[in-house]
Amino acid sequence: MNYEELLNVALKEARKGFEEEGVPIGAALFDAEGHVLGRGRNRRVQENDPSAHAETDAFRRAGRQKNYQDTIMVSTLAPCWYCSGLIRQFNIGTLVVGENKNFPGHLDWLREAGVKVIELNDARCIELMSYFIEHHPDIWNEDIGVCKPSK
Amino acid sequence: MNYEELLNVALKEARKGFEEEGVPIGAALFDAEGHVLGRGRNRRVQENDPSAHAETDAFRRAGRQKNYQDTIMVSTLAPCWYCSGLIRQFNIGTLVVGENKNFPGHLDWLREAGVKVIELNDARCIELMSYFIEHHPDIWNEDIGVCKPSK
Repeated sequence: MNYEELLNVALKEARKGFEEEGVPIGAALFDAEGHVLGRGRNRRVQENDPSAHAETDAFRRAGRQKNYQDTIMVSTLAPCWYCSGLIRQFNIGTLVVGENKNFPGHLDWLREAGVKVIELNDARCIELMSYFIEHHPDIWNEDIGVCKPSK
Repeated sequence: MNYEELLNVALKEARKGFEEEGVPIGAALFDAEGHVLGRGRNRRVQENDPSAHAETDAFRRAGRQKNYQDTIMVSTLAPCWYCSGLIRQFNIGTLVVGENKNFPGHLDWLREAGVKVIELNDARCIELMSYFIEHHPDIWNEDIGVCKPSK
């Protein structure tokens, strides 16, 4: 499997998100042969939807599947607890991570649960996310739930 | 806070889901004063949406919030990894669980992360879910990702 090629599908989604002025994280779910089942991106800003992280959006758009063991989730950024929980609950067999410099995620927790995790350390993903975090720290913090109480 | 009263809001959602022939799990997100921010239910069957677990649906419908520390997530059933990850990532302060007999969830994992977890062991929630699991084991297994491969 050419994981770089799969990552390009997710990265295209992330760039679309960036153009829409949203959080530029993209993801896609593939079957065992590398065919796209669903592609998605973070839609917090675009649709005012806090539940639409890239991975959950791709999972949603893939529709109902009977089994995920042979599927491959590809994300431009290491998944948060919410998306890691998704991967673990549905026994998604393989996770490909574009980068985990801007957000470390919980890759060991997933590995311990039996998920095959591949880290690509992709410079394009790192740069896109770094730029967004630097320019929109408030939206980024909101997206990962680390905002301080307003009172 | 009257947690039984909050549970009734989630149970009403679960019953709506049952009437729609969906997975009868309901949830609602409340603010610190017990006002509803969003209510939701499992919509796998109704909308062919595998990502719409009750808790994520309630979270979604609550819209963007700056901070969740003071919020209360109420679900008729103990949350799966996906929904537990949501609660942990967004630092939802309190979780009220209608029952954890039909699905144990990961309540200790949430407690260790600092979530205040309240178990109500509600007979109405247990009965509704037991009935559904008995009559639709296939949909239930699909909903928690334990289906066997079709091949």
